[in-house]
Amino acid sequence: MRQSELFTKTSKTSPKDEEAVNAKLLIRGGFIRKMSAGVYSYLPLGFRVLEKINKIIREEMNAIGSQEMLMPALVAKEYWEKSHRWHTDIAYEFKSPFGEEFGLGWTHEEVISAIATGFISSYKDLPLAVYQIQTKFRAEPRAKSGLLRCREFLMKDLYSFHTDKEDLDRFYKKVINAYAKILKRLSIKANLTEASGGSFTKDFTHEFQVLSPVGEDTVIYCTACDFSQNKEIALVRRGYRCPKCDSEVKESPGIEAANVFRLGVRYSEPFDLKFTDKNGEKKLVVMGSYGIGPTRLMGILVELYNDAKGIQWPEAVAPYKIHLLAINKKADKVYERLKKAGVEVLYDDREVSAGEKFADSDLIGIPWRAVVSEKTGEKIELKKRGAVKSRLVSLDQLLKL
Amino acid sequence: MRQSELFTKTSKTSPKDEEAVNAKLLIRGGFIRKMSAGVYSYLPLGFRVLEKINKIIREEMNAIGSQEMLMPALVAKEYWEKSHRWHTDIAYEFKSPFGEEFGLGWTHEEVISAIATGFISSYKDLPLAVYQIQTKFRAEPRAKSGLLRCREFLMKDLYSFHTDKEDLDRFYKKVINAYAKILKRLSIKANLTEASGGSFTKDFTHEFQVLSPVGEDTVIYCTACDFSQNKEIALVRRGYRCPKCDSEVKESPGIEAANVFRLGVRYSEPFDLKFTDKNGEKKLVVMGSYGIGPTRLMGILVELYNDAKGIQWPEAVAPYKIHLLAINKKADKVYERLKKAGVEVLYDDREVSAGEKFADSDLIGIPWRAVVSEKTGEKIELKKRGAVKSRLVSLDQLLKL
Repeated sequence: MRQSELFTKTSKTSPKDEEAVNAKLLIRGGFIRKMSAGVYSYLPLGFRVLEKINKIIREEMNAIGSQEMLMPALVAKEYWEKSHRWHTDIAYEFKSPFGEEFGLGWTHEEVISAIATGFISSYKDLPLAVYQIQTKFRAEPRAKSGLLRCREFLMKDLYSFHTDKEDLDRFYKKVINAYAKILKRLSIKANLTEASGGSFTKDFTHEFQVLSPVGEDTVIYCTACDFSQNKEIALVRRGYRCPKCDSEVKESPGIEAANVFRLGVRYSEPFDLKFTDKNGEKKLVVMGSYGIGPTRLMGILVELYNDAKGIQWPEAVAPYKIHLLAINKKADKVYERLKKAGVEVLYDDREVSAGEKFADSDLIGIPWRAVVSEKTGEKIELKKRGAVKSRLVSLDQLLKL
Repeated sequence: MRQSELFTKTSKTSPKDEEAVNAKLLIRGGFIRKMSAGVYSYLPLGFRVLEKINKIIREEMNAIGSQEMLMPALVAKEYWEKSHRWHTDIAYEFKSPFGEEFGLGWTHEEVISAIATGFISSYKDLPLAVYQIQTKFRAEPRAKSGLLRCREFLMKDLYSFHTDKEDLDRFYKKVINAYAKILKRLSIKANLTEASGGSFTKDFTHEFQVLSPVGEDTVIYCTACDFSQNKEIALVRRGYRCPKCDSEVKESPGIEAANVFRLGVRYSEPFDLKFTDKNGEKKLVVMGSYGIGPTRLMGILVELYNDAKGIQWPEAVAPYKIHLLAINKKADKVYERLKKAGVEVLYDDREVSAGEKFADSDLIGIPWRAVVSEKTGEKIELKKRGAVKSRLVSLDQLLKL
């Protein structure tokens, strides 16, 4: 992509109406644009990041045998009423011009349970798992954390259906592994954290918590082993010893990157979602639900990977792999060769100063900066974002990067 | 995919609350499920079709240099007020718990114009074009045509920005060509039809109209040349001669598959979207907007390609290429070989009768049916959906299909 033709431009000044680092940098870099509090547009650069996150999520969801589908945002009152979730604080609810009442989908347990009744009747139909990457709506009172807490956002929600709790537990562990893989591929370090099961279940649920000063949750975690609990349920406190290994325990704010829930029969009951078991007995389907939010992950990535100059995208999610800068010299040949070789490259061919190009490159945060200038002759000056030193490489070496 | 593990099942009976052939067949085949009037879920089979349509659209949109992005559904009242489209009949409007008023995006001229003001300032920034594949909401009074007219649906909307009308006209033709390519790749025959410019422009706009008895528009078209006009603007009528070639003119209902609009300065004016021209003069940006709906295209495809037994997907959009049926004999080896070769195959490994498998295969409408049975020995009975005759092929021949 030629930067001169890119829809967006960078901005030198931070937006005044944003507090969060992720929102400030993403807006300045031209990745997103704020439309109203907690509502953003994803501009071409940001959309590319989002699609890379989505691709990784899809691959890991497909790998555990779950099937992709798409549910609607318009969820009629009847669905919410069955599960007693009509008039929930978090929901945007309204009446249509024809008198129908809708709650915009902020989660889809109701919808998927209703759908599943059409396709599950015997134990032979189970287990099953379906997911979607879909837009959710939540009337968040505080929407001040950029992409970490939006009123409209992308969610990958997965729902699973089982004959019994044991089968649910097996799949539950599979999803935890899949989420761990996703986060690892995204270079996001997160603690698998026990949390409250809410009203659904006596068991703990689990959250992947990213320890970060901007987190809205609080995590009590062990400095030596994998013990980690949401403060809401933790019996130990800062200064206590770890109940698992007796090492030091610390407290930190955490950003919830993903969660997994054992729903049990919380939704199969009101929707009468039953199956006939091997003995011909009718039983309620046992369900699980699992969420990870692509747009929130994008926000987390920027919170984790930035410096005073801008963003530092991990390569797996960067909008482009190489930022090619032409300094007082055309770099069209290098650009064409890279493109031809299938390398994702943003080519700064704009007629602006070298200083502006370098500053923008640091702000946008593409992993590799390749500079073509008179100074370096046929060679290309290659630098990793965040590194101090650069090195001179040939075009062939750049192609093999 | 093993059909025994597929989330959906087929249904022998037509849904009672649907009139349209596309909805009836798509629901019976397990492609979609109705959630409320004009609101559908896209189940795994349907989602695959949708993704294939989206991929074709993306390729053609990228080929004309437009950039993908994503705008929100929550569009604040302020945006609509600027263009005097607050309180439009077609909009779902509501007040949030915090008093903000939103109209769910039924189109995005307002949002994109507001965004573009941040990135367009000089003639050097133009032309530009961006698109999204995004969920739209419209309070349709009649939602009885299945996927042809939904209250929630997917839309690919493209917006372009130009220095003048000549440049817009150049791009307008490019989009018409791109849409023609998309429809051709989807095997949808459509007439490029002149239609009313509405309030935006004196020029005609253009629609791609699919002649079909279930269309809600009416098209006057020439039986010999490419003359085609929406009846709303047509001066000729059935029985008249074609104004272009003097041949016979006919009238037919039409389904609008795509449309292209010259917006002119209709939206750049209220949003003060201006650029500085070569002489340093400030001028309003000239805009175009272009729409094609992936979910509607899916409905059109089923209306065009079906028979008494079910759907007949064109290969480019079929959920799978081959439907492998195991009749009283396992076909696991064939299935594994096909999968390994990267062939998209749905494998009916269910323990149901041969008759049920054949009927379901015709209903689902995958282009190639490959039957493994005792009768055919090592050979596979291959039949194209809709064909009368089948032929015996080897596994190697099937792999080369």
